[in-house]
Amino acid sequence: MTLKIGVIGTGMIGRDHTRRIQNVLAGAQVVALSDYSSEAAKAVQADLAPDATVHATGQELIAANTVDAVLVCSTGSTHEDYVLAAIEAGKPVFCEKPLATTAEGAKRIVDAEVAAGKRLVQVGFMRRYDSGYVALKDAVVNNTGAPIMVHAAHRNPAVPEQYVTPMAIHDTFVHEIDVFRWLLDDDYVSARVTFPRSCAASHAKLRDPQIVTLTTAKGVVINTEIYVNCKYGYDIQCQVVGEDGVAYLPEPQAIKMRLGAKFQNEILTDWKDRFVASYDVELQDFIKAAAEGTATGPSSWDGYMAAVTCDACVEAQEAEGSAIIISNPERPALYN
Amino acid sequence: MTLKIGVIGTGMIGRDHTRRIQNVLAGAQVVALSDYSSEAAKAVQADLAPDATVHATGQELIAANTVDAVLVCSTGSTHEDYVLAAIEAGKPVFCEKPLATTAEGAKRIVDAEVAAGKRLVQVGFMRRYDSGYVALKDAVVNNTGAPIMVHAAHRNPAVPEQYVTPMAIHDTFVHEIDVFRWLLDDDYVSARVTFPRSCAASHAKLRDPQIVTLTTAKGVVINTEIYVNCKYGYDIQCQVVGEDGVAYLPEPQAIKMRLGAKFQNEILTDWKDRFVASYDVELQDFIKAAAEGTATGPSSWDGYMAAVTCDACVEAQEAEGSAIIISNPERPALYN
Amino acid sequence: MTLKIGVIGTGMIGRDHTRRIQNVLAGAQVVALSDYSSEAAKAVQADLAPDATVHATGQELIAANTVDAVLVCSTGSTHEDYVLAAIEAGKPVFCEKPLATTAEGAKRIVDAEVAAGKRLVQVGFMRRYDSGYVALKDAVVNNTGAPIMVHAAHRNPAVPEQYVTPMAIHDTFVHEIDVFRWLLDDDYVSARVTFPRSCAASHAKLRDPQIVTLTTAKGVVINTEIYVNCKYGYDIQCQVVGEDGVAYLPEPQAIKMRLGAKFQNEILTDWKDRFVASYDVELQDFIKAAAEGTATGPSSWDGYMAAVTCDACVEAQEAEGSAIIISNPERPALYN
Amino acid sequence: MTLKIGVIGTGMIGRDHTRRIQNVLAGAQVVALSDYSSEAAKAVQADLAPDATVHATGQELIAANTVDAVLVCSTGSTHEDYVLAAIEAGKPVFCEKPLATTAEGAKRIVDAEVAAGKRLVQVGFMRRYDSGYVALKDAVVNNTGAPIMVHAAHRNPAVPEQYVTPMAIHDTFVHEIDVFRWLLDDDYVSARVTFPRSCAASHAKLRDPQIVTLTTAKGVVINTEIYVNCKYGYDIQCQVVGEDGVAYLPEPQAIKMRLGAKFQNEILTDWKDRFVASYDVELQDFIKAAAEGTATGPSSWDGYMAAVTCDACVEAQEAEGSAIIISNPERPALYN
Repeated sequence: MTLKIGVIGTGMIGRDHTRRIQNVLAGAQVVALSDYSSEAAKAVQADLAPDATVHATGQELIAANTVDAVLVCSTGSTHEDYVLAAIEAGKPVFCEKPLATTAEGAKRIVDAEVAAGKRLVQVGFMRRYDSGYVALKDAVVNNTGAPIMVHAAHRNPAVPEQYVTPMAIHDTFVHEIDVFRWLLDDDYVSARVTFPRSCAASHAKLRDPQIVTLTTAKGVVINTEIYVNCKYGYDIQCQVVGEDGVAYLPEPQAIKMRLGAKFQNEILTDWKDRFVASYDVELQDFIKAAAEGTATGPSSWDGYMAAVTCDACVEAQEAEGSAIIISNPERPALYN
Repeated sequence: MTLKIGVIGTGMIGRDHTRRIQNVLAGAQVVALSDYSSEAAKAVQADLAPDATVHATGQELIAANTVDAVLVCSTGSTHEDYVLAAIEAGKPVFCEKPLATTAEGAKRIVDAEVAAGKRLVQVGFMRRYDSGYVALKDAVVNNTGAPIMVHAAHRNPAVPEQYVTPMAIHDTFVHEIDVFRWLLDDDYVSARVTFPRSCAASHAKLRDPQIVTLTTAKGVVINTEIYVNCKYGYDIQCQVVGEDGVAYLPEPQAIKMRLGAKFQNEILTDWKDRFVASYDVELQDFIKAAAEGTATGPSSWDGYMAAVTCDACVEAQEAEGSAIIISNPERPALYN
Repeated sequence: MTLKIGVIGTGMIGRDHTRRIQNVLAGAQVVALSDYSSEAAKAVQADLAPDATVHATGQELIAANTVDAVLVCSTGSTHEDYVLAAIEAGKPVFCEKPLATTAEGAKRIVDAEVAAGKRLVQVGFMRRYDSGYVALKDAVVNNTGAPIMVHAAHRNPAVPEQYVTPMAIHDTFVHEIDVFRWLLDDDYVSARVTFPRSCAASHAKLRDPQIVTLTTAKGVVINTEIYVNCKYGYDIQCQVVGEDGVAYLPEPQAIKMRLGAKFQNEILTDWKDRFVASYDVELQDFIKAAAEGTATGPSSWDGYMAAVTCDACVEAQEAEGSAIIISNPERPALYN
Repeated sequence: MTLKIGVIGTGMIGRDHTRRIQNVLAGAQVVALSDYSSEAAKAVQADLAPDATVHATGQELIAANTVDAVLVCSTGSTHEDYVLAAIEAGKPVFCEKPLATTAEGAKRIVDAEVAAGKRLVQVGFMRRYDSGYVALKDAVVNNTGAPIMVHAAHRNPAVPEQYVTPMAIHDTFVHEIDVFRWLLDDDYVSARVTFPRSCAASHAKLRDPQIVTLTTAKGVVINTEIYVNCKYGYDIQCQVVGEDGVAYLPEPQAIKMRLGAKFQNEILTDWKDRFVASYDVELQDFIKAAAEGTATGPSSWDGYMAAVTCDACVEAQEAEGSAIIISNPERPALYN
């Protein structure tokens, strides 16, 4: 009854998921590995999965009889083909974000999955599995009354020189795009971007910070500050304002101290620490569904909607201050 | 050396300021009262200032030799004339908001004061005297680095039926308009209003909540949620995001309790309790400056700028989603 | 109707109370000053009360016809005689702590006041006027159910070399002694002191920190940590545990900031800042009652009970770990 | 490489550990079950471990060749015999608390394990695996300076009628006894119990609340309030005061909300929810060590010391207010 998993891409995240499956989670083992660098795949094999087979290509791995389910952790531009191959093979596939590099690519995956007639794809939007967001959603459903506004912030201490304005959408804000759709059970209808003066750490190709305003089909307005050079820490803030009250995303656990004339607790500085526990939960969820031949959690439809919204937000950056309409194609029944 | 004050208008706020001068503050006494209802003026005289003279009109009170300084607490439409008369008489005058009912009226006061050649007018923007905002300004100047964004909320549990959309600017948001100019030491250059779906308690003439976006000359973007039917309490929130970090307006003092499976503290529900201590401080400030024949604190220029900004925000409500430019006339040297 | 006050002792606290009466509070003025150094008295006269008379002695000041009420701010060993003289003269008197240097001395004041037949003495236990303790008492009366335990801490960053173990009671803990009697409306029946290992900053004559356990007539157990070399700040903590829940003394207002990988707010380091607002309130209360020829607030009985309890606590320090019984004399009807 | 585990006792905790091993944790499976009610064992087999063998007795299970390691989850009085049998069989054994019902019994286990020459026993003190305590220990080691005092509380909403005073030690406080030894890396030298008046929910055989004062070999004083009828929730509080500052055990994650004039978050009411995540971590730790033929985490020595301290605390309850000396036998080298 152990699910046999093949991992495509053995970089940082592929290695980490392999460790997770081998040493932390129940019900699965890694039986196959592949990477464009076979050395990298062999290193993970040696360290974590000595019984796994190293395949020459991802496509070969997907086709292998020994493989029940697939993890796609390779570079983003390769995702679409691997996911389509896995759907073709009828094997559940967990795909790290992005599902595809274009909305059109994501749409092809949706179409293939709908043609296959059942959910096979889970996208790696791990925030839905964070205990804080899960509790926040519970509060929104049960306590705040119907939501009307969301005030959010995505702050990061610093970014490298090659980080440019559109990456604030595709690499950073994409997490909010997915998690707010899920949190509010809603779809976006427009996007607007406002730029304050840029912070001192910005440069010619990066306007930082920025405020993205999304409106939803139900009339909710979501303001999110994106500030990737905020210096002080990696900090994800979210409050939902409803008919009856306000609920806040919890802060990460931290020891409060009285020390040196300060009442204080540490703020994380590395994004990798913020949602670390949710990776375990999302992958356990994948294992459980894959053992039954299907997939759950963030779907290829969610991945497609994220891609469509990202495109609108980048357009909104360029049209500074103007609202860009987001058209929502009809949702196939498979995703209801 | 006791400052002799005349109070015009003896309604709720006029009575309260009289009590304050008579029983709480040092260095002043109320020697004259007037109200369009002489009964009301006599009632305050009987209760709080038995030695004061009741004058038939505010103009007579202003002219009285016994009066060193004037408090204008009458209905808004009368403010301009009383303030102009006090300036004409060379007497320091404290004027409750609004300084005038139109920007033009406020401009006339500015012109008269400039002609008089010295500060004589203090406008009743009491938030500048709130210990929380004072501490926040200190943090902005000393700790956060130069400000880039402000996220604020002005929430009120419920409003009466006659409260309509523009009142959210003139009666509610006007406090933020003044206090943020002071907090940031900046001027506004544009206003935009975004409306989420209205809450259940809204009606045909009230769209509630709304989000006002102000941008400043220095490039700061200020988003303020105005939500006057938020149900849960009267709640003023403000966070300033700067180059180095974030500072928050403190919550009002409240006892934290563990009770009935909740860790909790009370939220105020009546706006009159929120800034109650700041009225003492603003009026003590007025007394101190008036004893020296001048005025300090929020000036008639600040009152004028608030009026100009209010007009732009109401225009922005009507132009839903579009930015309205705010033109800033040149500031007379008197107000530097 | 202005209360004419004489101030005996023009050191730090006498000067500060003079400033308060002259510049901050309503209804009183300082008309007389005295100090064992007439230079000191004249300096305060020059700076704050030019119309006041400087008297050669406190006794002369008390006797002066111009003086309605007396503030005793001189060195502790002189308090008893001045207070007795004021009672003898039938003049309301505010006495800084201690009321007397011995329980017997305090008892003599109680006896004199009882003989005078009315309240004339207010002792300077200002914590009862702190808005935090006032709110905490309200919560204890209305929310927590009947109190059963109190957990408290009195922490101070550092003390000078001459600070020795008994001073932790007489100079430091005496504030808790008074405020908990008032908070709980109860009397003490025993005291015990427990010493952990001493902190590095302790010395031969100072064992620091220590934990004082008081039990009350109603069966409440109060544990208070006294830690006068805690380094990090001046910090007063108190939680009351009752039948239904727990209530906490509020922290002083402070700006919360996100800065340098810390979510933080400042902790005070100087005791003078902690209860600064309560001095205004206690003295305004004195002025109001004195204008009617009497006194209110902490009574000479409270001062006497504080002295009795201090003595028991010092005895408990010496009897480390053993409970010392506190006998409560019968309370005269004047103090009910 | 999968560890084959036998579970003795299939009541609530045995069932839950079985679920954990089968569905949550990596590296192990349940291959054997036993219970004094074979029906109960078969039910767990049916629900969670269909491939497991149900054994007639725990001793038979321990002896089975198929079993690599043992979980003792049966009733407390049977623990000692099962643990001794597992040691005898050379099999790693995880034993729920108590290790034995008497200090002498725990000592016999220590002796047997020392004779066996290696760690084979882990005791189920799960708090050591709680992320909050782990972070607190890190703060104590790295930030607060050497500890001097601990202020703690163990509060529970209500207890059944059969809960009597000594159970506050053996069933409730035993967790603090173990976790503070570990947190401080210290041993206890005395215990004292102070009783405030009992709360309304107490009865003839239960004095509740109580305050236990432990002192350690290094001179730390630990005051713990035990209040098992506190009504408001299940609440574990701990603050450590050191040379340089204070660190607090974090509150459990909870959504903060503004609702109904309250700023609030939920407090847990069921003890089973408080440390639920730590069961996963402790058992994963057991699996990892057992796979190498040994044990880690809380040792039989820790279980023995907990038993010795419990006995002293119960004696201290009977000797209300007097300190009871705790003698610490020499620690065998195996446990250093």
